[in-house]
Amino acid sequence: MSEPAAATPFADRVAAAVTERRSQLVVGLDPRLELSGEAVLGRAEAADAFSRFCRGLIDAVCPYVVAVKPQAACFEVLGADGMRALEEVCEYAATAGLLVIVDAKRGDIGHTARAYATAYLEPRNGSAPLADAMTVSTYLGRDSLEPFVASCRRSGGGVFCLVKTSNPGGTDIQDLTLSDGNQVWQHVAKLVAELGEDVVGECGLSSIGAVVGATYPRAVSEARRLLPQAVLLLPGIGAQGATPADVARAFTSGPASALVTVSRSVIYAYRFEGDDWRSAAGAEAARLRGEVWAASGW
Amino acid sequence: MSEPAAATPFADRVAAAVTERRSQLVVGLDPRLELSGEAVLGRAEAADAFSRFCRGLIDAVCPYVVAVKPQAACFEVLGADGMRALEEVCEYAATAGLLVIVDAKRGDIGHTARAYATAYLEPRNGSAPLADAMTVSTYLGRDSLEPFVASCRRSGGGVFCLVKTSNPGGTDIQDLTLSDGNQVWQHVAKLVAELGEDVVGECGLSSIGAVVGATYPRAVSEARRLLPQAVLLLPGIGAQGATPADVARAFTSGPASALVTVSRSVIYAYRFEGDDWRSAAGAEAARLRGEVWAASGW
Repeated sequence: MSEPAAATPFADRVAAAVTERRSQLVVGLDPRLELSGEAVLGRAEAADAFSRFCRGLIDAVCPYVVAVKPQAACFEVLGADGMRALEEVCEYAATAGLLVIVDAKRGDIGHTARAYATAYLEPRNGSAPLADAMTVSTYLGRDSLEPFVASCRRSGGGVFCLVKTSNPGGTDIQDLTLSDGNQVWQHVAKLVAELGEDVVGECGLSSIGAVVGATYPRAVSEARRLLPQAVLLLPGIGAQGATPADVARAFTSGPASALVTVSRSVIYAYRFEGDDWRSAAGAEAARLRGEVWAASGW
Repeated sequence: MSEPAAATPFADRVAAAVTERRSQLVVGLDPRLELSGEAVLGRAEAADAFSRFCRGLIDAVCPYVVAVKPQAACFEVLGADGMRALEEVCEYAATAGLLVIVDAKRGDIGHTARAYATAYLEPRNGSAPLADAMTVSTYLGRDSLEPFVASCRRSGGGVFCLVKTSNPGGTDIQDLTLSDGNQVWQHVAKLVAELGEDVVGECGLSSIGAVVGATYPRAVSEARRLLPQAVLLLPGIGAQGATPADVARAFTSGPASALVTVSRSVIYAYRFEGDDWRSAAGAEAARLRGEVWAASGW
């Protein structure tokens, strides 16, 4: 028996998708029910509604994005039914030719970290992996990240490590000043850069990426310097107040060296526009794709 | 319509269980398949096997523990089938009269954090919550923890915030020295203590607890000082090398002010003893319960 062919590294797949689609946009899939929704529908029906909503969004934004980012929590809240919907949505996006980044922010140690990597990044009983990449937490340190890195090397998957998050409270811990003058997040960035050195694709970028909030433009520039080979995943544009201009400097390592993720402003665009939800989402994604591409300078 | 009666706060339920059972022991439920297991069995059968294994363990250890701690990753790796098994295991433990702490280490912001809290700590369509408490990550700061705290206040649930973890790599970020001379984890401990002040039960303990590795005995004492009202959840005894004597000082805020969690050494006790797996697990749990109770000095 021969070894299976090594999968194309995640970073190379991102680079190819960005070039082909002339887009660095990722749309977050965060389906939500109002409080009464689950009670009225029941879990199985609510999960079906989430699946339909997300598949409709995928159809609408597909021409304008490189990836979708399902938010694990939104599905997990519906238990096993929700997990089934998440699986459907991930498979649908992959079939549509999009990369899938599960926003799970998982983090644990040893066998447990390996189980999370397996759950999202490794082939499932002969089927494709659930996702191309996932977000991971960093507070538990290097030995909590190594199982994910090993999985990426083996399966061609990618991870985005939480480095400097977009929320106001992110400063509480991440911006603490260390005795050496660095901030905590800068130290984390260096750790992530080191771990990523072993998983660099032919495009020169690493499959070990980093989450950096677009809401902190100076941190974006600094993260680019500390993580020259990482693909940066940049939330915060739109509902959280940042603009494409705020992240321009993230792209100095190449057109695929950063991905901009937007959720609410695209998937709930119809609330603002009053249009059919699918065409409203598509139009907003098309607009943002153009703005981000222009800001990236490529 | 009258408001439903407020649920008893998690900390008070812990205190009552510890007193009644004369135990501060929590058994972690970390079912695993060897690599070939899932391929041979298929996901649904593997999930059934996990459910049976965990229910057998619950029967075996029930007289000696106050809670079980299912590890979310172990179930998540089997997708929707695994989530169904997790739900079965949680319901079985609750029926057996045990508290359930889901070890999920979730952490996110805003709506997403609320979704995780809802998934684990809030009533599900008229049924009881999946768990009594869950572990949560802290790197995203105060506004990522507040939705969990609000949920605990509302639903009577509890959280254990990652403060100082038991793994060697935990030092990479948590032990960094800040410009004020504190370590990062000490700063996190203070944040958790503040958040916990609003959710103190009649027993004087807070439902906002903290995870502190028994593998760092000095940190255990220091955490006790920084978090006088928190229930400390202490992993690291057994397979990771710590002993009950290492955590004695955690109990100075009362017999229920700390819980000791053990996984491998109990649930795989039969590998060492060669006995029936259930009776081996029960015997090991009984032994550890006695040792921890003696070390606690109550």
